[in-house]
Amino acid sequence: MDDRLQRQMAFALEIDKEKNILRQTHLSGHGRRENDAEHAWHMAIMAWLMREYANEEVDIARVMLMCLIHDVVEIDAGDTYAYDAEGKKTQAAREDAAKQRIFGLLPQDQATQLMALFDEFEAYETPESKYAHAMDNLQPVTLNASNGGSDWREHGVSADQVYGRQRKTALGSQLLYDEVIAPIIEHHIDTGEIRPS
Amino acid sequence: MDDRLQRQMAFALEIDKEKNILRQTHLSGHGRRENDAEHAWHMAIMAWLMREYANEEVDIARVMLMCLIHDVVEIDAGDTYAYDAEGKKTQAAREDAAKQRIFGLLPQDQATQLMALFDEFEAYETPESKYAHAMDNLQPVTLNASNGGSDWREHGVSADQVYGRQRKTALGSQLLYDEVIAPIIEHHIDTGEIRPS
Repeated sequence: MDDRLQRQMAFALEIDKEKNILRQTHLSGHGRRENDAEHAWHMAIMAWLMREYANEEVDIARVMLMCLIHDVVEIDAGDTYAYDAEGKKTQAAREDAAKQRIFGLLPQDQATQLMALFDEFEAYETPESKYAHAMDNLQPVTLNASNGGSDWREHGVSADQVYGRQRKTALGSQLLYDEVIAPIIEHHIDTGEIRPS
Repeated sequence: MDDRLQRQMAFALEIDKEKNILRQTHLSGHGRRENDAEHAWHMAIMAWLMREYANEEVDIARVMLMCLIHDVVEIDAGDTYAYDAEGKKTQAAREDAAKQRIFGLLPQDQATQLMALFDEFEAYETPESKYAHAMDNLQPVTLNASNGGSDWREHGVSADQVYGRQRKTALGSQLLYDEVIAPIIEHHIDTGEIRPS
């Protein structure tokens, strides 16, 4: 095996560890906690399914790859819960070091490409990034709603926090925000799973 | 929410169940058994990484989507282990019924598209299908090799069975078969994790 292929195989094996990074979201059917790899898989398929609702035209292959790799850094940096204010303070530094190490396993050209795609996702500026973030927000809301909003209740999340978290979802898809996410939030404020602010 | 979006959301929620379908492969680090969603995520990324080794040029977006959805039918049909001769006899009928039900949740146009993509994968004829199958075979071998071949030993798998299973991998990528898979198999025949035939 030449050096290039060895590096690609090393990266392929390394990212297996993403399957051990647990999120706060629970699977439908009041299941166990979801892991990052499952979340990324789910997001990528939802991105393909819902692409007609993106605000701007997107390169769906770029979006799907962005969804698939956006949480690779959490192998080192861990998952930072959307409502963990302390963790958020150090998240960028932890994730940057992880990005260098993990994508750095790859041959230089692929490392550069995937780091750029990761940075693009984080920057929230391109149509692809905005739409991928909409999927990153829609996917756990879908599961949480299927479980009656129990993830919100468990963490005592308030309406302000949920609206804050979803603040930019409409930048990727106004329709999915208006038709799916906003009604789910309102419903769970009514039922009390989301604390009033 | 209109009927189209309701159907898309119903499908998005339904496929969450794929995270509960366990495979015979174990995660690296002698971890727990892998599930179908994790396997599909891993395959899709590996497909992107290794696309330069496909025998023929492939539309990588099609390959990635094919990888992501190829095991959705196992929500109803269950995972059929590669070396389960009895299960293999009924696999096609079980998977066809599952395909109709699960993709049938979608709006007609998307149901048709994803059923066609699933059928294309199964038919093993197009460059995309052959290459996606190479990933379907390479991904578990990578994990199994990282664990010293313990999945083969656990099931008493023979060299004939492994070579049979990998028979068509080279149709998708001769290089990955020659440089990665064949050496791994030979090594594990030598170490005894794969039974001699």
